[in-house]
Amino acid sequence: MPAHTVRHLSQALNIEDLRTLARRKVPAFAFSYVESGAEDHATLEHNREVFKGLRMIPRQLRDMSEIDTTTQYFNRPVSLPFAICPTGYNGMLSRHGDLKLAKAARKFGIPFIQSTMSTSSIEAVAAELQGNEHWFQLYVLKDRAISQRLMRRAADAGCETLVITTDSVIIGNREDDRRNFVRPQVLTLAKKLNVALHPRWALDVLWPDGVPIFGNLTEFLPKDQWSTAGGAHFISQQMERALDWKRIDEIREDWSGKLVIKGLLHPQDIALALKHGADGVILSNHGGRQLDGSVSPMEQLPAIVERFASQCEIFLDSGFRRGSDVAKALALGARGAFLGRATLYGLAAGGQQGVETALRMLSNELETCMGQLGCANVHDLMATQMIVPSAPSLKHSLEDA
Amino acid sequence: MPAHTVRHLSQALNIEDLRTLARRKVPAFAFSYVESGAEDHATLEHNREVFKGLRMIPRQLRDMSEIDTTTQYFNRPVSLPFAICPTGYNGMLSRHGDLKLAKAARKFGIPFIQSTMSTSSIEAVAAELQGNEHWFQLYVLKDRAISQRLMRRAADAGCETLVITTDSVIIGNREDDRRNFVRPQVLTLAKKLNVALHPRWALDVLWPDGVPIFGNLTEFLPKDQWSTAGGAHFISQQMERALDWKRIDEIREDWSGKLVIKGLLHPQDIALALKHGADGVILSNHGGRQLDGSVSPMEQLPAIVERFASQCEIFLDSGFRRGSDVAKALALGARGAFLGRATLYGLAAGGQQGVETALRMLSNELETCMGQLGCANVHDLMATQMIVPSAPSLKHSLEDA
Amino acid sequence: MPAHTVRHLSQALNIEDLRTLARRKVPAFAFSYVESGAEDHATLEHNREVFKGLRMIPRQLRDMSEIDTTTQYFNRPVSLPFAICPTGYNGMLSRHGDLKLAKAARKFGIPFIQSTMSTSSIEAVAAELQGNEHWFQLYVLKDRAISQRLMRRAADAGCETLVITTDSVIIGNREDDRRNFVRPQVLTLAKKLNVALHPRWALDVLWPDGVPIFGNLTEFLPKDQWSTAGGAHFISQQMERALDWKRIDEIREDWSGKLVIKGLLHPQDIALALKHGADGVILSNHGGRQLDGSVSPMEQLPAIVERFASQCEIFLDSGFRRGSDVAKALALGARGAFLGRATLYGLAAGGQQGVETALRMLSNELETCMGQLGCANVHDLMATQMIVPSAPSLKHSLEDA
Amino acid sequence: MPAHTVRHLSQALNIEDLRTLARRKVPAFAFSYVESGAEDHATLEHNREVFKGLRMIPRQLRDMSEIDTTTQYFNRPVSLPFAICPTGYNGMLSRHGDLKLAKAARKFGIPFIQSTMSTSSIEAVAAELQGNEHWFQLYVLKDRAISQRLMRRAADAGCETLVITTDSVIIGNREDDRRNFVRPQVLTLAKKLNVALHPRWALDVLWPDGVPIFGNLTEFLPKDQWSTAGGAHFISQQMERALDWKRIDEIREDWSGKLVIKGLLHPQDIALALKHGADGVILSNHGGRQLDGSVSPMEQLPAIVERFASQCEIFLDSGFRRGSDVAKALALGARGAFLGRATLYGLAAGGQQGVETALRMLSNELETCMGQLGCANVHDLMATQMIVPSAPSLKHSLEDA
Repeated sequence: MPAHTVRHLSQALNIEDLRTLARRKVPAFAFSYVESGAEDHATLEHNREVFKGLRMIPRQLRDMSEIDTTTQYFNRPVSLPFAICPTGYNGMLSRHGDLKLAKAARKFGIPFIQSTMSTSSIEAVAAELQGNEHWFQLYVLKDRAISQRLMRRAADAGCETLVITTDSVIIGNREDDRRNFVRPQVLTLAKKLNVALHPRWALDVLWPDGVPIFGNLTEFLPKDQWSTAGGAHFISQQMERALDWKRIDEIREDWSGKLVIKGLLHPQDIALALKHGADGVILSNHGGRQLDGSVSPMEQLPAIVERFASQCEIFLDSGFRRGSDVAKALALGARGAFLGRATLYGLAAGGQQGVETALRMLSNELETCMGQLGCANVHDLMATQMIVPSAPSLKHSLEDA
Repeated sequence: MPAHTVRHLSQALNIEDLRTLARRKVPAFAFSYVESGAEDHATLEHNREVFKGLRMIPRQLRDMSEIDTTTQYFNRPVSLPFAICPTGYNGMLSRHGDLKLAKAARKFGIPFIQSTMSTSSIEAVAAELQGNEHWFQLYVLKDRAISQRLMRRAADAGCETLVITTDSVIIGNREDDRRNFVRPQVLTLAKKLNVALHPRWALDVLWPDGVPIFGNLTEFLPKDQWSTAGGAHFISQQMERALDWKRIDEIREDWSGKLVIKGLLHPQDIALALKHGADGVILSNHGGRQLDGSVSPMEQLPAIVERFASQCEIFLDSGFRRGSDVAKALALGARGAFLGRATLYGLAAGGQQGVETALRMLSNELETCMGQLGCANVHDLMATQMIVPSAPSLKHSLEDA
Repeated sequence: MPAHTVRHLSQALNIEDLRTLARRKVPAFAFSYVESGAEDHATLEHNREVFKGLRMIPRQLRDMSEIDTTTQYFNRPVSLPFAICPTGYNGMLSRHGDLKLAKAARKFGIPFIQSTMSTSSIEAVAAELQGNEHWFQLYVLKDRAISQRLMRRAADAGCETLVITTDSVIIGNREDDRRNFVRPQVLTLAKKLNVALHPRWALDVLWPDGVPIFGNLTEFLPKDQWSTAGGAHFISQQMERALDWKRIDEIREDWSGKLVIKGLLHPQDIALALKHGADGVILSNHGGRQLDGSVSPMEQLPAIVERFASQCEIFLDSGFRRGSDVAKALALGARGAFLGRATLYGLAAGGQQGVETALRMLSNELETCMGQLGCANVHDLMATQMIVPSAPSLKHSLEDA
Repeated sequence: MPAHTVRHLSQALNIEDLRTLARRKVPAFAFSYVESGAEDHATLEHNREVFKGLRMIPRQLRDMSEIDTTTQYFNRPVSLPFAICPTGYNGMLSRHGDLKLAKAARKFGIPFIQSTMSTSSIEAVAAELQGNEHWFQLYVLKDRAISQRLMRRAADAGCETLVITTDSVIIGNREDDRRNFVRPQVLTLAKKLNVALHPRWALDVLWPDGVPIFGNLTEFLPKDQWSTAGGAHFISQQMERALDWKRIDEIREDWSGKLVIKGLLHPQDIALALKHGADGVILSNHGGRQLDGSVSPMEQLPAIVERFASQCEIFLDSGFRRGSDVAKALALGARGAFLGRATLYGLAAGGQQGVETALRMLSNELETCMGQLGCANVHDLMATQMIVPSAPSLKHSLEDA
């Protein structure tokens, strides 16, 4: 593609443009946190390559006068086969980042999944969502009482779906991030100077209260440790490295709503998730931020759909940048494509308006793609074998299925 | 290949050189319209990669003293296994672009397929063709009477073959084009300045009547809406998003000549085309301008030839740049290779002479290639299994066949 | 590999270095003639990629104290599994280029194959070879008497092997060369100036007699048409486009020595060659100079060896640049690896000494490679299955075999 | 990954950073010796590509509170599934390089394998190792008495494991190195000047005794030939090109400890190694320094593990740069991943501290990777099929197994 310049949200045509803008708008350390992948970025790049390697065979001459992108998650309607994935530190990209993401999600009729590490409280987010799908993501902590307390607050706030993230017990080796800090929470001099070059961001994010705090964790911390540093330290102390299926059983006891396990990739783990009471799974390699050299959710998808689609809802994240990526995932049997960086680029590029721009882009692209594929609704898309498995690893997955 | 400069038509050795010249001769917005692919250009690039991945096994020691490139489409002779594909806005590249394309097609004895969006009228083109194969491409419009009127004019003008394009009901997301315009029909300032740098083009194309009008649509429009903008608006209003096989049945009723469906890629759609009365199909992904991430016609070809070659004529377009590309298509069973950008580059580079140059290049290359393959005529070429399916996706297609 | 400079023959470590030197030493048009491939260089590059895609599995702990590179062609001993392929216009690279190539071939105990288009006469080459293997390559001409006369001279000069080239009936579309000339034999101004920048070359090649003449053709031409232009015109007039297997039968009648057909790639053509009396074949795509998009000899080799190795000698050319390439060809069953550009780079870089340098490099590399593979002689190498067919197209060939 | 600068050991995050530092710290000729691969670096690059082509499927929700990287080699415990491979000339990178490598190995509880070409004596290394695993690598020399003498010294020094290198009988064609020297041991002027630009290195390595000598060879040489030049000449004279399995039988007679054969890649050679009394093998292509175009140990591993893992210990080297590479090797059945350049980069970058840094990096990365894979110990890792064989050549190997 020819090079082009994007300086304003109005000029952005696609997620990549939002990424360009985001890089401009926020300090390097904050952009890097969103962008970084583990070690050599092998997983990060592989996620995209798998999408690129899939080819679609369109159908023609079907009535496309109405294209319906609505679907259901757990028999509840959503307007698009999307959701906004749980990500931490969102308030570093834009003031009250989680609230902005939540409002955009509400506007587009898709679930907002709030992270344990949200910079807003569950209750504040719930207030913005006004009854729209609010899912809560829980990092399982050593102290069961804390987990229970967070689940209680989530249930009270109206969350019907709980997401347990399994692949972050041991934090990924993100060298890009490590180079930004001289020690935890302390930026290198170069990065500090870079912050100074972003006064608008500083005014939006830092003024007058300083670095955002973790909205859900304050009640567990003494007031003088509410800072990001304090919260991060608390979580790293509390993160349960012994996390196993027994802890899932406890969660299952403690949580009566829908339970979704996020971070699974192996078919045997899906089988275990079902056995331990999960209602859905999010296939994920954490956007390439954890295990470098991991398979991609997309290449695992066909074999997993083949075996488990009738028993649970199968979502996936990691690498969605185009509506056609979403179409490919659904054509291979996924129920929903969950968004991480795509909407965060929008948030960093333009706050709530940026998030809405991101969702509008993906929504438009998906609708166009469905129309060009000859699929007037999501059910058609999910029922259609229209993918040529040119990617060798996907072929492998299909053969195993 | 070593870099080289091409400034005059006489220096151009191949289609790529014509492309280089075209980029020089016409304003950026017009070149971009020809050049642009949907979104990330994945389909656009994939089309070429599939050609490049195919290897031929030549035969030796066959009498090549005479090489005969003639063939038949619907039992009517053509001099070369080519046709010029329907493209709109041709008059933006060179004054009376369609007439120039038509005259060159006549000179080389190949069909000219006129677009609904032609900047010349059917009758004007017919006058130039003087009985040479004239095919008319119809965008099926909401108002059946308009379609009927256009078919009637085509039949009256001597067209024996009608082409229905199926894959443009929803226009592709061509971001390159979108960046050239601030709103439909209104160029950005930078592009306007760029136009000013092409006075020869302006003199040829714009003077004295301004932007060319759509020659076939004037009768349906009030005089003050004859402009390109008016025509484009009319078509976008009239484009039938509900286009389906029932509309093909209507067309079949309304048209007694040969009926060709363009834009199919799925074997099941070929079967439906036959059922609904098509005489031929043009496998096409619209030159990568519509669905980004589509399979290429070439990779679908073997499986489709295997099943349907005895029941209809199978043509294809999307990506032909060399005579050897044509040879590969015919060796895999296609009856004809249809040209879009290849001849448009010629038109933009040098008017009718440029189109003839493009056709002469491809004709010479095809003849040389046939001679080197040991195929003295098109029948030999079509009957020969001389392709090594190294491209994985083609292999897939062959295995399915 | 790190960049490095090569200015003198003594600094050259490998064929690529000789290529760098050659580019420096001779005018651009002459280097380009050696270097050029057809059209997009697809075949040229593919030839190398196939070699690169083949991996060897070495054997260990075999006595490598003596490594014997000798082999037999038609039961006659050669010191290395090489030959110098027939190429025309050699005198343009270095004065008396064919004689220098011949002397180097004699020194290394390998056949020299003289081209019909040699710039020396058969008899002059024979005088230099002093009984070393002298093969003569014949372009089959329209006038059988001329072919017979050339064969008679070759036999009288002691040639026991005749090579018929089949793939040059229609000359490849080498655009690089076409750009060097304003019309046949007339360089562009830029190329003429470039010649002037190579006074040493001019002194060696052009002084005092001008452009070298075709040594074998003078007797068929009036004295005033002995020039390269005249010879090239004569050959292009005489080149038999009707060349077919009947002409091979005639040759077989006219030639009692060994008959080798060069330019075959299809297994069915090997079968025909045997039927028509060939004693050997040279699998070749003419070094990528003829059909662009051709399979490579290496990928055709396994299937052809499997079926025909017991019935004829199978040689190949096109792309040998390293001793390990030769080892790969022999490990897949070839009897000999024939050299074109590799020794011409040497000739252009340093005359006879340059050719010897090229042969010494390849000889040393082959010996090292054999030692590292655990093959003490050529028979071991040819009997060994040590190739992993990672190249998909080769895999195809192996599966067919 | 974004570019970044590494100037001090403390800034290095991974082996690639140590490589960057090493290039800075030692003269070009010495870095080049470590870095160089044979000929076109095809093997060198292929080794890395095979690692990159392997994808892992992580397991989730297993208790990762304790990750145990210990394993056993020949039933003796090691702390990590690593060893430091035998490399010569280590003293050229840092004074007493072997002693520093040995001390770091001891500190991390992994074997140090001392080369015949060590710049320290067996006894000096043993003194540093203080009972930690000390393996001795023997180049089999023509004079059996010398080999016996070296084995005797190794046994007396406490070595229980002997490693015989098989793939260096004929030295690889490392052109990078050849370009650094005008003749053996004599640097080019450019490289001499480059040495002068590294005064710290010169002070560390050369002062006051000059170029390090081969510590194990002095007793076989007259005092005036102790120099590197003298030792290299002695070894090149003594290197047994007739090395074969009979010599292994002799070694087996002469050595009562564990016997490991290094440099095997062909399954039939593993079978022979077992027959001739080997206890283990190191699959290796000598880090791409010997046969260019070799298969990689990793792609041979699955077929060899399948057949021989129950009969001997299977180690491998060549290309380990990340903890995840080690995890992949173990997941495919290797017992240990042996390190060559990885620890040498550390040595050149920062002496013993640099080696420890390298080992800490790999150790941390392996632990993180195991945790993310859900493998709490090495046994779990080795028993797990979690590799997607997307690399075609590996697929080949798996299919053969």
